[in-house]
Amino acid sequence: MTGDGRWFADYVPGTTSEFGPIQVDEAEVVEFARRFDPQPFHVDAEAAAAGPYGGLIASGWHTCALMMRLLADEYLSPVSSLGSPGIDELRWLRPVRPGDELTLRTTVEDTRVSRTKPDRGVLTTRIEMVDRAGEVVLRMVATNLVRVRPS
Amino acid sequence: MTGDGRWFADYVPGTTSEFGPIQVDEAEVVEFARRFDPQPFHVDAEAAAAGPYGGLIASGWHTCALMMRLLADEYLSPVSSLGSPGIDELRWLRPVRPGDELTLRTTVEDTRVSRTKPDRGVLTTRIEMVDRAGEVVLRMVATNLVRVRPS
Repeated sequence: MTGDGRWFADYVPGTTSEFGPIQVDEAEVVEFARRFDPQPFHVDAEAAAAGPYGGLIASGWHTCALMMRLLADEYLSPVSSLGSPGIDELRWLRPVRPGDELTLRTTVEDTRVSRTKPDRGVLTTRIEMVDRAGEVVLRMVATNLVRVRPS
Repeated sequence: MTGDGRWFADYVPGTTSEFGPIQVDEAEVVEFARRFDPQPFHVDAEAAAAGPYGGLIASGWHTCALMMRLLADEYLSPVSSLGSPGIDELRWLRPVRPGDELTLRTTVEDTRVSRTKPDRGVLTTRIEMVDRAGEVVLRMVATNLVRVRPS
């Protein structure tokens, strides 16, 4: 099932899915970081080569944004997504570099209908971004509010 | 003290600082979301007006990125910042809208020198983004690796 037709009941605990990949583009890495995270190892290839990561790496927030693009396109649905109150245990496990290609892996961990607003539910998802070598580069636990299908 | 000259010992537990503000620009809200989080309430003013937030709101990842810009400019230092292994308890507490103006509030929660790599320390910071009305719109607990000043 693609994200487009999903309502709350379509998220089934225990289900793991993979989406993507999405490309990590060098020009975008630098452009994103110049605006939002201008540390030398994100914006300056020469300084980055001499720095702690031995080369340019993507801002961790850029990697989160790339994750979100796949999540919005493939996992959430415009008919039912009501936004997110937050994220737990966000971990940048490995540097992400220009040329990398990342796949989104989602596992539905928990779903419960809201007690106060029964038109929606709380969806808990374990999220990983995985590189071509199969290494997890980013993980987090996301909470999303999702509409129940109107009866 | 500005971020530029900071080393690990310059982060003193219990210290609270404020930086900014930074503006939330409507064109940037839409541009960011078109690329990274194309949900109707982030990219389409008309759909957003009829949606759950009654108008356009910034992607939560965009708000994190705006936070990072202030953190990189004002709190971290290019001489000592070695990146971050992760974030805990990230919460989007209130919608952020075009025209908002956000201030970064940092509180140094804990510092400890690395046992395995004594040239660096682990810095734990409580982070809040606060709007003009004084309401916290985003909060998180950040971990950063920071170089010890060379002796």
